[in-house]
Amino acid sequence: MNGKTTPRVAIVGAGFGGLTAARALARAPARITVIDRKNHHTFQPLLYQVATAGLSPSEIAAPIRSILRGRDNVEVLLGEVTGFDLARRLVETPEQKIPYDYLVVAAGASHAYFGHDDWEPYAPALKTLEDATSIRRRILLSFERAERESDETLRRAWLTFVIVGGGATGVELAGAIAELAYVTLPDEFRHIDTRKARVLLIEAGPRILPTFTPDLSAYAHTALERLGVEIQLGLPVSECSAQGVVFGEQRLAAKVILWAAGVRASPAAAWLGAPADGAGRIQVKTDLTAPGRSDIFVIGDTATNDAWHGKPVPGIAPAAKQQGVHVADTIKRRLAGDDSPRPFRYRHSGNLATIGRRAAVIDFGWFKVRGYIAWWIWGLAHIYFLIGVRNRLSVALSWLWIYLTGTRSACLITQGPQRSEPR
Amino acid sequence: MNGKTTPRVAIVGAGFGGLTAARALARAPARITVIDRKNHHTFQPLLYQVATAGLSPSEIAAPIRSILRGRDNVEVLLGEVTGFDLARRLVETPEQKIPYDYLVVAAGASHAYFGHDDWEPYAPALKTLEDATSIRRRILLSFERAERESDETLRRAWLTFVIVGGGATGVELAGAIAELAYVTLPDEFRHIDTRKARVLLIEAGPRILPTFTPDLSAYAHTALERLGVEIQLGLPVSECSAQGVVFGEQRLAAKVILWAAGVRASPAAAWLGAPADGAGRIQVKTDLTAPGRSDIFVIGDTATNDAWHGKPVPGIAPAAKQQGVHVADTIKRRLAGDDSPRPFRYRHSGNLATIGRRAAVIDFGWFKVRGYIAWWIWGLAHIYFLIGVRNRLSVALSWLWIYLTGTRSACLITQGPQRSEPR
Repeated sequence: MNGKTTPRVAIVGAGFGGLTAARALARAPARITVIDRKNHHTFQPLLYQVATAGLSPSEIAAPIRSILRGRDNVEVLLGEVTGFDLARRLVETPEQKIPYDYLVVAAGASHAYFGHDDWEPYAPALKTLEDATSIRRRILLSFERAERESDETLRRAWLTFVIVGGGATGVELAGAIAELAYVTLPDEFRHIDTRKARVLLIEAGPRILPTFTPDLSAYAHTALERLGVEIQLGLPVSECSAQGVVFGEQRLAAKVILWAAGVRASPAAAWLGAPADGAGRIQVKTDLTAPGRSDIFVIGDTATNDAWHGKPVPGIAPAAKQQGVHVADTIKRRLAGDDSPRPFRYRHSGNLATIGRRAAVIDFGWFKVRGYIAWWIWGLAHIYFLIGVRNRLSVALSWLWIYLTGTRSACLITQGPQRSEPR
Repeated sequence: MNGKTTPRVAIVGAGFGGLTAARALARAPARITVIDRKNHHTFQPLLYQVATAGLSPSEIAAPIRSILRGRDNVEVLLGEVTGFDLARRLVETPEQKIPYDYLVVAAGASHAYFGHDDWEPYAPALKTLEDATSIRRRILLSFERAERESDETLRRAWLTFVIVGGGATGVELAGAIAELAYVTLPDEFRHIDTRKARVLLIEAGPRILPTFTPDLSAYAHTALERLGVEIQLGLPVSECSAQGVVFGEQRLAAKVILWAAGVRASPAAAWLGAPADGAGRIQVKTDLTAPGRSDIFVIGDTATNDAWHGKPVPGIAPAAKQQGVHVADTIKRRLAGDDSPRPFRYRHSGNLATIGRRAAVIDFGWFKVRGYIAWWIWGLAHIYFLIGVRNRLSVALSWLWIYLTGTRSACLITQGPQRSEPR
């Protein structure tokens, strides 16, 4: 950088990593541009609650401009990044090119279908608010279709919900759909008994919640079954279609299939010409820079590194935030003339997952807890980490309401029919 | 009806009229079927706040099944009514035919473009939750486009908002957009000054709020202008296009045009083969039955009658509700063997409209009030009339938040691009 113009930092993506970096750079002597294709930050850990009618989209999202409004050196740009011009140091969008001296790539991830992208229309996954409202629409319409279906076989298919993938998202979706069917909806239909709906969680591995300790996995397994969820372990899904799923030798008719089985990083590796792992993530250096590019940092789900005592850092919000802080610190030090690289070290605070309305599992390492108490800790932690007082108040009110009355206020079917919706 | 089977009542539409009728019939000795093409009741008086990012869709809507859940003789059907088989007494939907002994048509209204339906893509109107989120998207995207536009003329077009129609909806939309531009957003953009946005309300008649007394109209006019809204009276709009509007001799470049100028009843008149007025409404008899059909009642925006001391009943929520109660009473009396017709009499409780965040006009006839006090009465009345304690709490919290902080929590752009969105 020359000494005359203010250095420019471009941040691609306003998820947990990008937003944390932008906030930490707010008082640095640089001009920051945050580029995102959405106008809002999404609190992804609670997306499953929007998909299952517990929360509204606006309760778990906040406009990026509004989050960053007080920071005069930060500007926000709504735009779809299509690539980088590395030679001229430009971020490219269809409308304009944004120059940078430092680039932070925090472009997140989307779903992976392991070579079966044709399954996506039949087994949608959950990454954005639009995904969540469209999954909600599918789930609620399925009950409506069952209500007016006279053919018993078809009716069963409309009342069969399959969730593929037994990680935290799959477990949380399965638990919430079970509560919707068995607790919230039974009094609202006249021709079907929603308590007879089938909720099936399919996990290819030997246990659900594989990142937790085996005893917490086992507890979650029992707790889910107590809620009414069937769990199928050890069999990968070999087909998803408009008719249902095939796993092992079994073919199951199901109108709603949800995909929670894998993620794939944004195309940033291709934009950077950097090598990527099987999930499309860029293997970054210990200081989180891209290989051979000391001015480019890659963080969050777009990157992979072994900064967790030699193990890969997990793809969760706290990890992305820590990386955002680290990168902001590095940039601030470099702006002050200190170019020495400092390695990122991940501090794991724990794994959390909730199972329905009254149970959760928490593994803080030094402290493991499950059941009702864990559910309260889970709830308070999520309210605490939500962005904005307004969203915290609103989510707290919604949860209190669901907790006390059992009714879900967000059972709305909106939007027109989507592509490949079941018929 | 024969004495053996329970009489059936079909109610088409779960707006204010249909829902009130269904609730009032809940303990009657009849089977009630409520048919609506949406799964939710929408509180239309607050739709403009969803469109202008003050409230979320779920705060002003409630699932119809959930509203009617405790009533065992009432069932809800999600379906699009396509017509009636009057000879066989059936309501027709693509999936099934619903028999009735009594039919209540409360199918509402949609927008009217006075023979210019080709304007609709450029000047959307506000009738459903989807309309509201799509208008919100247009408004917010317009600021985003202005922020990255370098051409001054185009930038002005992106920052020009035109509202066609000076009734309550037009006035409320104009006031809310002015607040969004002049109060909420100024700190959030770096390249544009949202305070320079132009908000223009065009009314073909001689004054805004024509259903109010002239002094309240004049007050609202002044209050809107104080908020920064320009008002153009006495000139009808003669063109709406992707470029903007033409009114009188003027051609104004504007990327966001909103239509609040007219409504048209649902096609129920055609389904019934009944004569309709210019707005498509069926002229019903004094007991609210359709001409020549003593078993069919038509209420709310689908009907017109002169039950307000010889004047037409206004198309507002309290009028629809009163008609719903009257029809339910008539059906209950008939079920009890009393076939004597009893005329409906409309009791007008008043007109209300709000102008931005601190002013409103209220005309109760015996009591007129305007300004700050009126705004509080307006707010409390709307919270009171919302359906469900949950929505009341939530709207109260949202309003309190906007009132205290000036920030709007619902500034979310969701969904993909819509047909004919400005570019």
